[in-house]
Amino acid sequence: MIGFDEIRKLSQITPSKIVLLVMDGVGGLPHPATGKTELEAAQCPNLDRLAAESICGMHYTVSPGITPGSAPGHMSLFGYDPLSYPLGRGIVEALGLDIEVAPGDVVARGNFCTVDKTGRISDRRAGRLASDKSSELCSLLNTRVKLNNCQLEFFPGKEHRFVVRFRGDGLSDEVSDTDPQHEGMLPIQAQALDPAANKTAGLVNALVEKSRTLLEDQSPANMFLLRGFSQHPDYPSLHNIYQVTPACIATYPMYRGVSRVVGMDILPAGENLQTQLEVLRKNYDSYDYFFIHFKKTDARGEDGDFDAKVKAVEELDAALPGFLELHPDVFIVTGDHSTPAGIAGHSWHTIPVMLRAQYCRKDEVTEFSERACLHGGLGQFHATELMPLAMANALKLNKFGA
Amino acid sequence: MIGFDEIRKLSQITPSKIVLLVMDGVGGLPHPATGKTELEAAQCPNLDRLAAESICGMHYTVSPGITPGSAPGHMSLFGYDPLSYPLGRGIVEALGLDIEVAPGDVVARGNFCTVDKTGRISDRRAGRLASDKSSELCSLLNTRVKLNNCQLEFFPGKEHRFVVRFRGDGLSDEVSDTDPQHEGMLPIQAQALDPAANKTAGLVNALVEKSRTLLEDQSPANMFLLRGFSQHPDYPSLHNIYQVTPACIATYPMYRGVSRVVGMDILPAGENLQTQLEVLRKNYDSYDYFFIHFKKTDARGEDGDFDAKVKAVEELDAALPGFLELHPDVFIVTGDHSTPAGIAGHSWHTIPVMLRAQYCRKDEVTEFSERACLHGGLGQFHATELMPLAMANALKLNKFGA
Repeated sequence: MIGFDEIRKLSQITPSKIVLLVMDGVGGLPHPATGKTELEAAQCPNLDRLAAESICGMHYTVSPGITPGSAPGHMSLFGYDPLSYPLGRGIVEALGLDIEVAPGDVVARGNFCTVDKTGRISDRRAGRLASDKSSELCSLLNTRVKLNNCQLEFFPGKEHRFVVRFRGDGLSDEVSDTDPQHEGMLPIQAQALDPAANKTAGLVNALVEKSRTLLEDQSPANMFLLRGFSQHPDYPSLHNIYQVTPACIATYPMYRGVSRVVGMDILPAGENLQTQLEVLRKNYDSYDYFFIHFKKTDARGEDGDFDAKVKAVEELDAALPGFLELHPDVFIVTGDHSTPAGIAGHSWHTIPVMLRAQYCRKDEVTEFSERACLHGGLGQFHATELMPLAMANALKLNKFGA
Repeated sequence: MIGFDEIRKLSQITPSKIVLLVMDGVGGLPHPATGKTELEAAQCPNLDRLAAESICGMHYTVSPGITPGSAPGHMSLFGYDPLSYPLGRGIVEALGLDIEVAPGDVVARGNFCTVDKTGRISDRRAGRLASDKSSELCSLLNTRVKLNNCQLEFFPGKEHRFVVRFRGDGLSDEVSDTDPQHEGMLPIQAQALDPAANKTAGLVNALVEKSRTLLEDQSPANMFLLRGFSQHPDYPSLHNIYQVTPACIATYPMYRGVSRVVGMDILPAGENLQTQLEVLRKNYDSYDYFFIHFKKTDARGEDGDFDAKVKAVEELDAALPGFLELHPDVFIVTGDHSTPAGIAGHSWHTIPVMLRAQYCRKDEVTEFSERACLHGGLGQFHATELMPLAMANALKLNKFGA
C-alpha cells in the first residue's frame, strides 16, 4: 500500500468535507434463534437507504483473525497501520482517563494487587478493589511518595486500575514491566531495555520500594504492579500527511485521546448523538474532516445484550438524518471492530462499511449489514485503505505519476 | 506478494502465448440519466461472450484511492509495482515523444513560462503557448545554447511543453526542479540532491542563465522551468524475470516508451486496431507475450464524452473476434485505470479485468462491466498480481517448494 511519504505529495487542500461516523463494535454474529445479526435484526431504514446510495464493503483494522483493541482499531480507521504505529498500554490507559501527557513524560498502567508475607502475588487485582478505595490510595501515594528530580502523579482508574505519570528530564519508556502477569510470583525489578533508560528504571524501582513500605498495612491492596511504560508517540499528524484539518467529536475520553495522537482538534462533544450533531453543525465551517464516535453499539455488545445492541443501532439510525442534512461530500459509516453480543467482547470478524460521495461508484448493496456489505464494490480490505479512499472521493488527491 | 527473485526461479519457457489487450481508461461511472456505465451502455456482445468464458475480477494499479498516471498504470499491468519501480516525469515525457534516451543521459520536462520584470513567474504555461511557437523556440535554443562537455538537445512537445536532454560523461538525475510549481515566485536554482550530481546541477544552472538572456525578448515565452530530472531506469526486463519474449503493439509513443523500459520489442503498430491485428498475426510466431494498446476509451473519457466512449468500446468489441481467431493460450482484457466520462480525467476507481485460458476456472460473470466483474473469481486485487496469473494460466510457472 502507498506510504505516508507518497500520499503527502498527492494531497491537496479543498473545501470538501469528510465525515467519518464510527459505530463502535458494530459488527456482530447471528442470533441462534433467528439467524440474524444485530444489524440485520435492527429496524434501520436510514442506514439501509444510505447503503443504497453508497459503495459498501467489509474491512479489518489489524489483520485477518486479529481482534483489535479500541486504540489500534481507530488508528487504522485514521489511516495508521497499528502494527507500524503502536500505542503502548500506559499511553492508551492515560488517554482513556483524559490525563495530560506532555512530551518527555513517561506513563505506566498500574494494578493494585495483594502480596503474601513472602512478597509473592496472591491476587493481581486485589480482589477487584473498589474504585473509591483505589482513589484514596492514589491520593496517599501522591502525598507521601517523592522522588529526586522527578515529579510523580498517580491517577485512579476503574476498580484496581491506575496510571502513574513520571515527569522530569531525561526519561525514557524503554523500561520492562514490574508485573509478571502471573500469581504466585514476586513483582519484577524494572530493567532498562536501553542504556538511555537507566535513570527511569532506577526511578521506577525507587518508587516501588518506597510504596511497598507505605502500602504495607493497606491489604488487600498492599502492593502494585506496573506495565506498559510509554511516552506520547510522535507520529505524523493527519494534517501533516493529508493536509486535512481534522476534528474529533467523541463522548468518551479514550477516543478523544487517540484522536489527539493523530493531531485532531478535540471539540466538546456533550453526552449523546444530539449534542454531537449540534457541535458538528456549529463547527462545520472550521474543519474539513470530522470523526464522530458512537459508543453504545460496543458497550451493549460487551454486555452480551443482543436486544440492547439492536436498540443502540436503532438509536443511531434515528439520529442519522440530522447528520446527512449537512450534505458532507464524503460520508462514511463503519466500526473499529466487531463486538458480537454472542461473544460479549471484541472479536476478529470483519466490519461493514459504507462510503457515500458523488463519484463513489455505488454498488448493488441496499442494506447495511455484514452479509449485504460482503457484496459491495469495496470488497474486503485493510481499514488503512479507507482514508485514501475518503481523500480520493473528496477529490483531495492528485494523480500519481504521469 | 511473491518477488521477482522468487518468480524468476519458477518461470520457464514454453510455446504458449499470452495476449494482454489494454483498453486504456476503460473503467467508468454510471450516467446520471440511465444509471449505466460506459461499459454497461455499450453493445459489446464479443466482450460479454469473452467474459462468460473467462475468470473475471477488479483490480487497482497503484493503491486503493490512488489515481494512476498512464506510466504507473502500465508498469503495474506488466508486473512492476509502480511504488517500487517509479518513472520520473522527465523520462515519461521523453518516452511519450519517442525521444532516444541512452544510458547516462539525463532528461527533464520543461515548460515555457512568462516572467515579469522582477523575474517572478506570472504564467507557468506562457498562455499555453502555440505548439509551433514552442517548436521554433526549441530550434533557437538548439542552435544558440552550448555547454562545455555536454551535448544538449531540446525537443518540443504539445503547447508550452518540451523535453531537454543532457548527454555527456558523469551526469546524474539527482537534481532538484527549477520549477517552484506556483506563480508569483522566482524560478529556483537547481541543486544537487547527491554530491555526484554537482556537475549536472551546475550544467542546469548554466543552461538556465544562458537561456534567460536568449529568451528575454520572446515574451510571453521569456523563460522556462524544468522538473523531473531523470535517467532511463535500469529495471529488470520481462524476459529476465519471466523468461518471456515480449512485444509491444501500440499506436501511441508513451506506451511504446513504457514497454521499452521493461524490455519489450517495439513492433510498428500502424494507426488502428486493424493494423495492430495484422502486426500481431505477422509476428505471432516470434514472440510469446504481446501487449496491445487501445487508446480511444481513455481519450473519449478524458473528453468527458460519454457516448463517444461507449462507441470506442463498441469499436474494440467489433475488432475482438480477429484477435480471438489466433487462439492465444491466455487472453486478457483490462485497463490501466478508470477514466469516467463524468470526471473527464483519470480516476481512482477499480478496473474490470477478464482472463481466458483453458484452465482459468471460469466464474458466473457473463458481462464485461464494473458491476458484473465485481463478482468474478479473481476478486479485487493489485494489478501486479496479473502477470503471475497470466504466467500460471500459460503453464509457464513451476511449482513453488516441494
